[in-house]
Amino acid sequence: MYLRSLFSTTGKQLSHRTASQTSWLRQFASGHREIPALTKERYPSIKRGQFSEVSDSDVAQFESILGGSNRVLTQPEEIQGYNIDYLGSVRGFSRVVLKPKSTDEVSEILRYCNERKLAVCPQGGNTGLVGGSVPVFDEIVISLQLMDKIERIDEYSGILVCQSGCVLETLEQKAAEKGLVMPLDLGAKGSCHIGGNVSTNAGGLRLVRYGNLHGSVLGVEAVTADGRIMDLMSNFKKDNTGYHLKHLFIGSEGTLGVITRLSIFCPTASKSVNVAFLGLENYESVKNTFLAAKQGLGEILSSCEMIDALSLESSTYHFNLQSPIDKYPFYMLIETSGSNMNHDEEKLTNFLTSAMEKGLVIDGTVTNEPTKMRNIWKLRELIADSLINDGYCFKYDISLPLDNFYDIVLAVRERVGPLATKVTGYGHIGDSNLHLNVSCSKYGTEIHKLLEPYVYEYTSNVRGSVSAEHGIGFLKTKYLKYSKRPESLALMHQLKQLMDPNGILNPYKVLPQV
Amino acid sequence: MYLRSLFSTTGKQLSHRTASQTSWLRQFASGHREIPALTKERYPSIKRGQFSEVSDSDVAQFESILGGSNRVLTQPEEIQGYNIDYLGSVRGFSRVVLKPKSTDEVSEILRYCNERKLAVCPQGGNTGLVGGSVPVFDEIVISLQLMDKIERIDEYSGILVCQSGCVLETLEQKAAEKGLVMPLDLGAKGSCHIGGNVSTNAGGLRLVRYGNLHGSVLGVEAVTADGRIMDLMSNFKKDNTGYHLKHLFIGSEGTLGVITRLSIFCPTASKSVNVAFLGLENYESVKNTFLAAKQGLGEILSSCEMIDALSLESSTYHFNLQSPIDKYPFYMLIETSGSNMNHDEEKLTNFLTSAMEKGLVIDGTVTNEPTKMRNIWKLRELIADSLINDGYCFKYDISLPLDNFYDIVLAVRERVGPLATKVTGYGHIGDSNLHLNVSCSKYGTEIHKLLEPYVYEYTSNVRGSVSAEHGIGFLKTKYLKYSKRPESLALMHQLKQLMDPNGILNPYKVLPQV
Repeated sequence: MYLRSLFSTTGKQLSHRTASQTSWLRQFASGHREIPALTKERYPSIKRGQFSEVSDSDVAQFESILGGSNRVLTQPEEIQGYNIDYLGSVRGFSRVVLKPKSTDEVSEILRYCNERKLAVCPQGGNTGLVGGSVPVFDEIVISLQLMDKIERIDEYSGILVCQSGCVLETLEQKAAEKGLVMPLDLGAKGSCHIGGNVSTNAGGLRLVRYGNLHGSVLGVEAVTADGRIMDLMSNFKKDNTGYHLKHLFIGSEGTLGVITRLSIFCPTASKSVNVAFLGLENYESVKNTFLAAKQGLGEILSSCEMIDALSLESSTYHFNLQSPIDKYPFYMLIETSGSNMNHDEEKLTNFLTSAMEKGLVIDGTVTNEPTKMRNIWKLRELIADSLINDGYCFKYDISLPLDNFYDIVLAVRERVGPLATKVTGYGHIGDSNLHLNVSCSKYGTEIHKLLEPYVYEYTSNVRGSVSAEHGIGFLKTKYLKYSKRPESLALMHQLKQLMDPNGILNPYKVLPQV
Repeated sequence: MYLRSLFSTTGKQLSHRTASQTSWLRQFASGHREIPALTKERYPSIKRGQFSEVSDSDVAQFESILGGSNRVLTQPEEIQGYNIDYLGSVRGFSRVVLKPKSTDEVSEILRYCNERKLAVCPQGGNTGLVGGSVPVFDEIVISLQLMDKIERIDEYSGILVCQSGCVLETLEQKAAEKGLVMPLDLGAKGSCHIGGNVSTNAGGLRLVRYGNLHGSVLGVEAVTADGRIMDLMSNFKKDNTGYHLKHLFIGSEGTLGVITRLSIFCPTASKSVNVAFLGLENYESVKNTFLAAKQGLGEILSSCEMIDALSLESSTYHFNLQSPIDKYPFYMLIETSGSNMNHDEEKLTNFLTSAMEKGLVIDGTVTNEPTKMRNIWKLRELIADSLINDGYCFKYDISLPLDNFYDIVLAVRERVGPLATKVTGYGHIGDSNLHLNVSCSKYGTEIHKLLEPYVYEYTSNVRGSVSAEHGIGFLKTKYLKYSKRPESLALMHQLKQLMDPNGILNPYKVLPQV
């Protein structure tokens, strides 16, 4: 039982995440990844809605709205990337991509499309994992990528106001210049847009510390299907003036409106960051170490991640990484962020010493050196991609009660037996969020049928959530019923009908077809 | 320039708030406070909706639903307290109070009332300040006070699940037994219900640390006007399964549904609490001290309050309190909560020393002794009540940009001149929330006309919020337009129409009559 203490004197704030998905389009272009089948062919049961098709006069109208042709893309080779999602799991065949620069332009586009009954697909950085950000059929893509103005960052109140097409990492850098930090962080930050993050209520790695976007986003401006601009902007954490409409647009994945601007609260940046990587004997110890971390690290705990043995094996093997500690059944990555390096180190040392004395933690390493922290984070962050390298990987992003958080991994492992290469579990235990992954040499219907709806039924039976942070998008609409009851689904359909009676906004997404 | 450091060795968690409003009904009963005029007489322009009147057979039906007569109050003397609000500003004349114990009972009551077109007023602890919690005419009161079961408190995940009629202070005590803290705290905690807090999106004193209820409340169960039970319960911070409907019930003040159960995330309780009381020369110093506190105290800052000279004069004079420091134009109350007493004291000392060296803070005292902390909090918390003692007090609860946060106090002071006894400003500067109070010897229409709509127009012009934490209720519906645009108001009316087509749920509240 030993703890390698690697505290160094460098404690500066750092960006330690990998941005592995920025080059995915190049991978398709270079033939490294296969162009997926058209969604309409892979999912023949989904029927195209009664929408108009884009005509030449529509294109002319869009060019008139957007002041020329350079922001109206119609060439197939220009459009390809907007039709395929990051995972390469779905592909639409949109013929037009529009690139507005202002809320008024978005409003004019939607007003016109609504009158003409033309379906649209709003798109941010196109890094979503559930097929929500690309067209299913020929929906017009409205790309927000030119709406990337940062309007204001106020160091006093911590409020950042920007257009929705700003890239998360850019905002992070600009916030840091004012001594602030964005309240969310995720692997895709190099490409994802803040508008997409808010539309999908993205979770990520800092949620255990700063909470979810329903708390952090203070104001939203969104355009509804008929082109009405809903100015729900606010710069205040306390603003009780009528129904809190902005939440209709947070997490509804572009089906109730297109977010064009927003204001978000940025906490004060931490001067000191530490990362601990720990080895543990069993899940019970993981759970109790999490509790001890909450109690011992309190206000400085900023990430609490669990990794099982097979997950770490996968990332170290496929990416040729070195674990800083020996092999154990479970690992935890614990990050602290605080305002005083000495205080943070003392808290962390006390916590770890106590956890080892109690036998919760068997082995561990601690560092505040940027390179070492980055290397430890890589062990965790590359798990997702590494499992795809086994051939094919079924991925489930679920929330589960901590009491039986890991049981599903064991149950699935037994259920699929040798059909799987690996059945692994890892994720944000600090937020009860498990990533259950089942890899195999290639896709097979037999294992698929063993997994679904089993995983969703299991999750539903323990009152878990069938989509923790990824959303429903196109790929999970039929599983929504495992987490939401018929009365709630009915109300969702009523809201959709109220706010988008022609159904032009991101059709076939979130709600199951009726 | 000096700092009286009063650090002692006691650092235990304490309940330092005053619960001044628990005995208000007794004050009415004992003649200490005047029974207010009926709302229908004081506000003759408000017309009763086309609702049925309660008949004997309705009462019999309610008795059948609630299993007898002891939970169906019809005696005027039993009902009086349910008809008058805390401030004594409005009074309805309901003839029936219903006390369900279960969600099913609430559902049956609403289904029946909706069919019979009987209007209802859901009521929690009746501590609201905008007349939202009592009937305007003869609406049936549905009191949630018997729905006070705590179902579960999980120390691992921090999730507390309870019925909506639980008193906030009770939850606070039960959470503390598990090492957790409720994410909200307010003066009325001894009487207010968590369901009322959530329905009104109550703010309070810990918001600067733990964020607002849209972030903390993880799940809600609510009954809609037609008796449908919306099970939107969730035990997870990450749960992206369709539209986030629960937010429709957070802050809509009982006009879209009656909240019956909820789950809320409770952070880890802090082992160490400190309070500093500071004297400052001007508002600019207050603003810069807040920024310095955010940067120097970081993650342990748990309250940041501003008090102007007249506010402190008022609470010390009317309640015979002693300020621990000399007189200054401005004061700040800064609270820290953390997991390590030594660390917190060191951070606080460093911050204060630096703020005094820079000339931001002129004088100050610091303590972690429970009695002394309680006495300092009293100076701040009794301001509201003390100003009423001048005779009459106009109260405005607004959010304003920090750049011109205090200007409105000076502008109003000049505008009303000698018509006012005091024009004061104090509040949660950490959340940009100002309480603007204008006291006078008695109510006068001349000063009233000088104040309104001036204060709301001023707030609107600087893009502030006309209701920060108190809500709209009955008293502020006509001012909603100063913070929300016509498109947003139209959508609110559409939502109300969709979810409560007969308009039986808390009528005359939140939305202006059309």
